[in-house]
Amino acid sequence: MRALVIHGPNLNLLGTRQPEIYGAQTLGEIDRAIAARASELAIEARTVQFNGEGEIIAQIHVAPPIADVLIINPGAYTHYSHAIADAISAVGLPAIEVHLSNIFSREPFRRTSVIAPVCVGSIAGFGADSYLLALRAALFVATGK
Amino acid sequence: MRALVIHGPNLNLLGTRQPEIYGAQTLGEIDRAIAARASELAIEARTVQFNGEGEIIAQIHVAPPIADVLIINPGAYTHYSHAIADAISAVGLPAIEVHLSNIFSREPFRRTSVIAPVCVGSIAGFGADSYLLALRAALFVATGK
Amino acid sequence: MRALVIHGPNLNLLGTRQPEIYGAQTLGEIDRAIAARASELAIEARTVQFNGEGEIIAQIHVAPPIADVLIINPGAYTHYSHAIADAISAVGLPAIEVHLSNIFSREPFRRTSVIAPVCVGSIAGFGADSYLLALRAALFVATGK
Amino acid sequence: MRALVIHGPNLNLLGTRQPEIYGAQTLGEIDRAIAARASELAIEARTVQFNGEGEIIAQIHVAPPIADVLIINPGAYTHYSHAIADAISAVGLPAIEVHLSNIFSREPFRRTSVIAPVCVGSIAGFGADSYLLALRAALFVATGK
Amino acid sequence: MRALVIHGPNLNLLGTRQPEIYGAQTLGEIDRAIAARASELAIEARTVQFNGEGEIIAQIHVAPPIADVLIINPGAYTHYSHAIADAISAVGLPAIEVHLSNIFSREPFRRTSVIAPVCVGSIAGFGADSYLLALRAALFVATGK
Amino acid sequence: MRALVIHGPNLNLLGTRQPEIYGAQTLGEIDRAIAARASELAIEARTVQFNGEGEIIAQIHVAPPIADVLIINPGAYTHYSHAIADAISAVGLPAIEVHLSNIFSREPFRRTSVIAPVCVGSIAGFGADSYLLALRAALFVATGK
Amino acid sequence: MRALVIHGPNLNLLGTRQPEIYGAQTLGEIDRAIAARASELAIEARTVQFNGEGEIIAQIHVAPPIADVLIINPGAYTHYSHAIADAISAVGLPAIEVHLSNIFSREPFRRTSVIAPVCVGSIAGFGADSYLLALRAALFVATGK
Amino acid sequence: MRALVIHGPNLNLLGTRQPEIYGAQTLGEIDRAIAARASELAIEARTVQFNGEGEIIAQIHVAPPIADVLIINPGAYTHYSHAIADAISAVGLPAIEVHLSNIFSREPFRRTSVIAPVCVGSIAGFGADSYLLALRAALFVATGK
Amino acid sequence: MRALVIHGPNLNLLGTRQPEIYGAQTLGEIDRAIAARASELAIEARTVQFNGEGEIIAQIHVAPPIADVLIINPGAYTHYSHAIADAISAVGLPAIEVHLSNIFSREPFRRTSVIAPVCVGSIAGFGADSYLLALRAALFVATGK
Amino acid sequence: MRALVIHGPNLNLLGTRQPEIYGAQTLGEIDRAIAARASELAIEARTVQFNGEGEIIAQIHVAPPIADVLIINPGAYTHYSHAIADAISAVGLPAIEVHLSNIFSREPFRRTSVIAPVCVGSIAGFGADSYLLALRAALFVATGK
Amino acid sequence: MRALVIHGPNLNLLGTRQPEIYGAQTLGEIDRAIAARASELAIEARTVQFNGEGEIIAQIHVAPPIADVLIINPGAYTHYSHAIADAISAVGLPAIEVHLSNIFSREPFRRTSVIAPVCVGSIAGFGADSYLLALRAALFVATGK
Amino acid sequence: MRALVIHGPNLNLLGTRQPEIYGAQTLGEIDRAIAARASELAIEARTVQFNGEGEIIAQIHVAPPIADVLIINPGAYTHYSHAIADAISAVGLPAIEVHLSNIFSREPFRRTSVIAPVCVGSIAGFGADSYLLALRAALFVATGK
Repeated sequence: MRALVIHGPNLNLLGTRQPEIYGAQTLGEIDRAIAARASELAIEARTVQFNGEGEIIAQIHVAPPIADVLIINPGAYTHYSHAIADAISAVGLPAIEVHLSNIFSREPFRRTSVIAPVCVGSIAGFGADSYLLALRAALFVATGK
Repeated sequence: MRALVIHGPNLNLLGTRQPEIYGAQTLGEIDRAIAARASELAIEARTVQFNGEGEIIAQIHVAPPIADVLIINPGAYTHYSHAIADAISAVGLPAIEVHLSNIFSREPFRRTSVIAPVCVGSIAGFGADSYLLALRAALFVATGK
Repeated sequence: MRALVIHGPNLNLLGTRQPEIYGAQTLGEIDRAIAARASELAIEARTVQFNGEGEIIAQIHVAPPIADVLIINPGAYTHYSHAIADAISAVGLPAIEVHLSNIFSREPFRRTSVIAPVCVGSIAGFGADSYLLALRAALFVATGK
Repeated sequence: MRALVIHGPNLNLLGTRQPEIYGAQTLGEIDRAIAARASELAIEARTVQFNGEGEIIAQIHVAPPIADVLIINPGAYTHYSHAIADAISAVGLPAIEVHLSNIFSREPFRRTSVIAPVCVGSIAGFGADSYLLALRAALFVATGK
Repeated sequence: MRALVIHGPNLNLLGTRQPEIYGAQTLGEIDRAIAARASELAIEARTVQFNGEGEIIAQIHVAPPIADVLIINPGAYTHYSHAIADAISAVGLPAIEVHLSNIFSREPFRRTSVIAPVCVGSIAGFGADSYLLALRAALFVATGK
Repeated sequence: MRALVIHGPNLNLLGTRQPEIYGAQTLGEIDRAIAARASELAIEARTVQFNGEGEIIAQIHVAPPIADVLIINPGAYTHYSHAIADAISAVGLPAIEVHLSNIFSREPFRRTSVIAPVCVGSIAGFGADSYLLALRAALFVATGK
Repeated sequence: MRALVIHGPNLNLLGTRQPEIYGAQTLGEIDRAIAARASELAIEARTVQFNGEGEIIAQIHVAPPIADVLIINPGAYTHYSHAIADAISAVGLPAIEVHLSNIFSREPFRRTSVIAPVCVGSIAGFGADSYLLALRAALFVATGK
Repeated sequence: MRALVIHGPNLNLLGTRQPEIYGAQTLGEIDRAIAARASELAIEARTVQFNGEGEIIAQIHVAPPIADVLIINPGAYTHYSHAIADAISAVGLPAIEVHLSNIFSREPFRRTSVIAPVCVGSIAGFGADSYLLALRAALFVATGK
Repeated sequence: MRALVIHGPNLNLLGTRQPEIYGAQTLGEIDRAIAARASELAIEARTVQFNGEGEIIAQIHVAPPIADVLIINPGAYTHYSHAIADAISAVGLPAIEVHLSNIFSREPFRRTSVIAPVCVGSIAGFGADSYLLALRAALFVATGK
Repeated sequence: MRALVIHGPNLNLLGTRQPEIYGAQTLGEIDRAIAARASELAIEARTVQFNGEGEIIAQIHVAPPIADVLIINPGAYTHYSHAIADAISAVGLPAIEVHLSNIFSREPFRRTSVIAPVCVGSIAGFGADSYLLALRAALFVATGK
Repeated sequence: MRALVIHGPNLNLLGTRQPEIYGAQTLGEIDRAIAARASELAIEARTVQFNGEGEIIAQIHVAPPIADVLIINPGAYTHYSHAIADAISAVGLPAIEVHLSNIFSREPFRRTSVIAPVCVGSIAGFGADSYLLALRAALFVATGK
Repeated sequence: MRALVIHGPNLNLLGTRQPEIYGAQTLGEIDRAIAARASELAIEARTVQFNGEGEIIAQIHVAPPIADVLIINPGAYTHYSHAIADAISAVGLPAIEVHLSNIFSREPFRRTSVIAPVCVGSIAGFGADSYLLALRAALFVATGK
């Protein structure tokens, strides 16, 4: 099974900024943890990061031949990018929404996700482990029903 | 590590009703899957189900001596039971919100959780596997930071 | 045909309190009128009253083997108990919502029913006769289409 | 006792259009069923249908000398015709609101009735039987208190 | 100066219904009072009453050759008939909105007027005298600036 | 009959500022027109102007022994001064709300009056003539019913 | 192919009033342009105009035997006539909503259409040419899929 | 005079949890303070605590023969339990709403009380002293007017 | 301990107007009752009344040297005077909000307090006794924690 | 006349994904149909597609020297990209908004367009023919008034 | 050039209260800094402070002969005083809104300014330097275009 | 001190488009004015312009080593780009929001800034001088506290 992990805007700064909210791991460390867990689970995982909405859309468009499941942390685009949601719907791959922090206990605008309705499910609040749980969930999604 | 899994209202009917939304597994089967996975992960898991808001609150009150983490699927109480949220806050145990279905792609009233703000994180949309992922997340929550 | 009539919270006080809104009949008198009318219509009617949301849910859960139609006056739960609505959906019995008073000419919060969307229909405003009309409607629901 | 049954806009198309929502009976068949049931109940029932808001208002204005109770299915006017509601208030006859379908399980705009607050009660969701139940309710309204 | 006074829906019932809200004068008496005052003020006043929105619109359309000012009590159409508002805008005659009762101290839906924004001014709350004051206001409107 | 005319905030600038909205008359000229019309109508009229909310309240408090009717143009306080509304309710004098401009065709915040619900009626949109019409309305209010 | 073009309230005034918004053509001229274009496209087009909501509904009811497509400019009814929307749904003909002006750049209340959800598509902002484009669109709708 | 003091959900945890919000006193200590103050004031006070909405309703139902005044801290039910509000209305006893903390300076959902409209008055923000003040207020309520 | 009691707008009319809402006591009588109770409790109480928002603010500004606790009935300013709320925050004295009537069972606009979030607590609904209870609460506030 | 047709995000996937909503034509086929129709109408049409908001803005900036009219299908940006709307306003070219599907009969968020207010008009719901109609509309816009 | 600087309610307490929000400078010190900077910029600056809304309005009224630009920190009146906004509009002087703190990162009610729409511009968040920047902006406003 | 000035979408068109709103200066001229003022103030200022949200985010990410303060005019992104706000929060540099026009006196959607809460302060309405004032404010921000 192949998973494409898309990190959204500002996630490239992880570990260097606001560790009290997002944890102390850098994105590189998280990507290595993802690779290690994927390897354990026999998943081919690829990770990418983009700050631009258009770039994320373009990446989703080319995902079907290279991935069976999308794992996406849309960052702040979570709350308004209907265009990313449309891209996910359009390519038809099952997608899992991931957040490092519990978006429901933060500012009100973070409590609404326009991406969630087009995803199979979501995992939020477990720091970098949210991604690792998503890998397992991806197995379920790709094979379980 | 000890986890208390609380199934909320109507979940006792799982597998016998509306399998197109909630899947074909019965609550008994889910509880056995939880037990099996917990055993693999060296977690002591206990599962309970209640239809009454007051009973769920009472159960949460007595959790601290017997559990390190709460895993709770509040069912429809998700959307209005501030009393359950207060109970979780009051006992101070880390809690993980779980949903079988992706509550964000259903009716609008299901997109708001009054429980989420007092939880560490949430996992939704993976059927019974949502619980199994939550067991792993519980390990992270209890030990990871 | 078998009908289960569920009286919700505070209805046990009927006839003794606020007769200007709810009429002067006691719940016992209403239940006797229901029994009489059911007998005329060859309906096996059973009536129960609960103040607790969890108890109503539990009663609905056990209804399928003993009833063909639910007749429910959810009292104030009408306006917020998504858990009762879920219970009705889950058991799959046709349900009829009944109110003694015309909930639409009272306080604004009473104008919204979260139960109505999962019912076949509703009858409101005719005092205890709302129940008697619901018995006839139950015949229609159980046999008419 | 005399009842005036007013069918609102588009109801003249009943039975020929959208039977999955409104049933297969034509308005003529419904009117005959009303006549038959009224006869059983010793009610003098008269039925009329109008598409225009002004015509419905005018009909209500002339009802007092010829009817003791109004039974009205305001169709889509249910949701915005304060003018019809004012007409009902003005003539002072008791009125019963009737709907073929359960307006609460359809589009959001159908969940609000501006007519309901000026009616004695309402019956919705039982197809043509909603009218037949309303005839019985009319007896209650005209004589019962 | 010529004034066309348009009475909206249900105003034909004045004096016979709900005198506690609308006063005891019949529309005929009001029209005679209007005629008397108009005569004093050297205004040619014509009065009409319609229950239908379309009829009111049609009347407004033909007003320009026969009137210099419109005086309109739109009744319940006040709160939703954008079509009447468009008619007033379209014919370009100055219009004065009149209400017998103080619409601001009644139900919330009566506090919004979609007609008011296209009128020169409004007079509300003085019973039939609202019309008589509007005749004087019409003089001001037609000649005063 | 005695009328107390209260001009609210900024009305002292009338005639010198924004004549395209409020007209070219100064407040002095308007007060003289009020005096003249009052004299014709055998009304004892007194006019005052205040910019402060507290001063308007204090003036209303002392009105009962010197006035039978209040005529008040609350200016921008119209839209939020519940304290002025309470003062009018408290003293129990009938009050008439007056506006120079048609507040309903201006900015949205001007379309709500918190004063109107405690007044007998309102007159808006006729420039300084709004006051003169209010004097006549005051006669109606004081004597007409 | 046969098209029925329904002009809603106030459109009979076109060309004589507010040409800055609606253009200088009269409805007669527009109807002639429609006839000419229809002739070019081999469409049998019939045009009607009504100010009354009930009349528009009645016209839609009788359209099926005489038209394959409805082209409707509902005027101000666009924003609140659920009864017209129900009529379109009921008769089952494909409908095209047309507006002379761009309703989205005018007052806020004009930005909502209750008719649009039951139409195939909409064309707005091109003056009388909106109708001519709709004739071409009607060909597409009737034959294209 | 007899007072029944009802402590709502989660209040049994007082003193052991979140003392920074609710103070360090246990519910037992508070109940003893209530008893002491009641004794000083010659009030027969009885205290009970329930987590379940239905249990609180049932308790209110049986209060009339044993209490003259209700003192109720509805906990989180304050914000949504219309059923408890209905119970208070139904039994007709004067009720006083009590809160330990100032609910108006906490989360927005805590600023609305559905219980308050059916109470005589409310006291909030004085910790356990809120109850002691309520005992004095109960004397006023029972005897003062 | 020293308390400054501030009566807001319109409270000077107490006892003479609307006794059905506010009671029959005059402000002078209330002030004497406050003085008597304060004396019993060994509190130095000073009472003032202002109709102007600015005057209330100025009074709050000079309170710190002469008072340990503020007791304030902001009247209608309760619902919009953020400036008074800022004054209370700025001077840093603990404040208690008092209302004669139960503001939660009156008009909707009275259910929101912009003052409450900056107060320690509030007491409402007990008529003049609300002030007397506030004196006791002030003791708690000044000394109790 | 020269038209620049801008296809927004995800439209490059047309024909390959969700044909039940967007039709079976690929964007290449649509572009060829546009070219053919443009040729018939003697329009120089150029077509471009972008997924990025910034790229669309940049394209609009450079349009004036190469186009007389913009035809834009903003995809999901329709609902939130005020930046694209500003770009259209800034360059001053007339613009026509186009949608393949009827955005008014889909999810609620699709019913609002922030682009529409800065366009001349809009055409929606006719599949690829929406573009072809827009070409004709562009002729009208460029030459017709 | 002459500038009138108006400090609104509670600003007289600056430096003595809540320095963590408003800084440690007293209003006297700020006024001296304003005087010094004004002198550097050859501006005649006058500073005043009022707690009352009416006093601020009165001050604005008399500003035209003595000032070319208003610099106003309306304090909490920012959020509701339409009367102050009307005063600024009425006198026609260019005005600059100033805030010490960044009102957009504080409570939600502080994010709306009813004064801003009638000002030329606003400066917020730079402590006392907001005033000094406003002096420079005043030069721009008075002379720059 | 080093300042990075970021111009958002469409600002590259300044001076050539809509000068009545944005002034006649080109962005090049503004950048030269910024350079000149910065030089006077001994600030190293760098200016950049981007239309893409992702590009602005990327620029903010690399700002810390090259700037002490951000000065940003987010254009229309002001109103919805939570991703830019997150970028500003993440890099931790103090930021100043700048607008040429007074966004509070334009369309309602322009009155909300999602960027403002993460900035130190904001300056709006002074045309190109807004940037020059921001340079001075930047000195204050970087050194003043």
